[in-house]
Amino acid sequence: MAVVVGYVPTAEGRAALRHAAKECRLRNTTLVVINSNRGGRELNGSEAARYEEELASVRAELDAVGISNEVRQLVRGQEPAEDLIAVAEEVKADFIVIGLRRRSPVGKLILGSNAQRILLDAPCPVMAVKADEE
Amino acid sequence: MAVVVGYVPTAEGRAALRHAAKECRLRNTTLVVINSNRGGRELNGSEAARYEEELASVRAELDAVGISNEVRQLVRGQEPAEDLIAVAEEVKADFIVIGLRRRSPVGKLILGSNAQRILLDAPCPVMAVKADEE
Repeated sequence: MAVVVGYVPTAEGRAALRHAAKECRLRNTTLVVINSNRGGRELNGSEAARYEEELASVRAELDAVGISNEVRQLVRGQEPAEDLIAVAEEVKADFIVIGLRRRSPVGKLILGSNAQRILLDAPCPVMAVKADEE
Repeated sequence: MAVVVGYVPTAEGRAALRHAAKECRLRNTTLVVINSNRGGRELNGSEAARYEEELASVRAELDAVGISNEVRQLVRGQEPAEDLIAVAEEVKADFIVIGLRRRSPVGKLILGSNAQRILLDAPCPVMAVKADEE
């Protein structure tokens, strides 16, 4: 059993990671951090290097606070929803944590297609966290 | 602090309730069960009586397993999303649990407007549970 979190280096990605880490501490379970990129033209060399650095620092922080973790960078040409769902099935996740952007004050923001797909298709419950929540 | 769950007597409502109860046991916190009806023509007398019976049995079950609880039936002419968000603010909820219908095998089911609104506007994280998950 484990908690799976979708991580991107944005405010909502970091909020999801912090929240997931707290849940793992409470449950004494492993945190599986997934950074999913489609690869190809969307990911150039310097971006890939920056992501790797970010993920190394995530791993170091989790190690430092004693949270059992596994950090995976997936570049398999899949949508993040597909990658997260596949990993959640593989590790028999207790739940998935995802970050959501808050509705903007000037307009209606509907849920992105990846978030909707994870919420509806994941094999387990999904915890959605907004950028200013931990 | 508390966990707030939106309860309706359906498969997904019951899954949300069971999941929320497990989380309260883990956290040793109070479960606030909200059944929200707009009232008016949507709720006739016999339906209202059936809801009251359902909620009394929910309360009895939670009492029996020793989970501190508060069951509220709200008929204030508001959408369920508004009621749940207001209660989550009032009790400073750790998170809200909602039930989701699974995507049907024959067609694409998008998230309902109440679910989207709770996910995006709640003052706290939201845990979404599907009907066959606990």
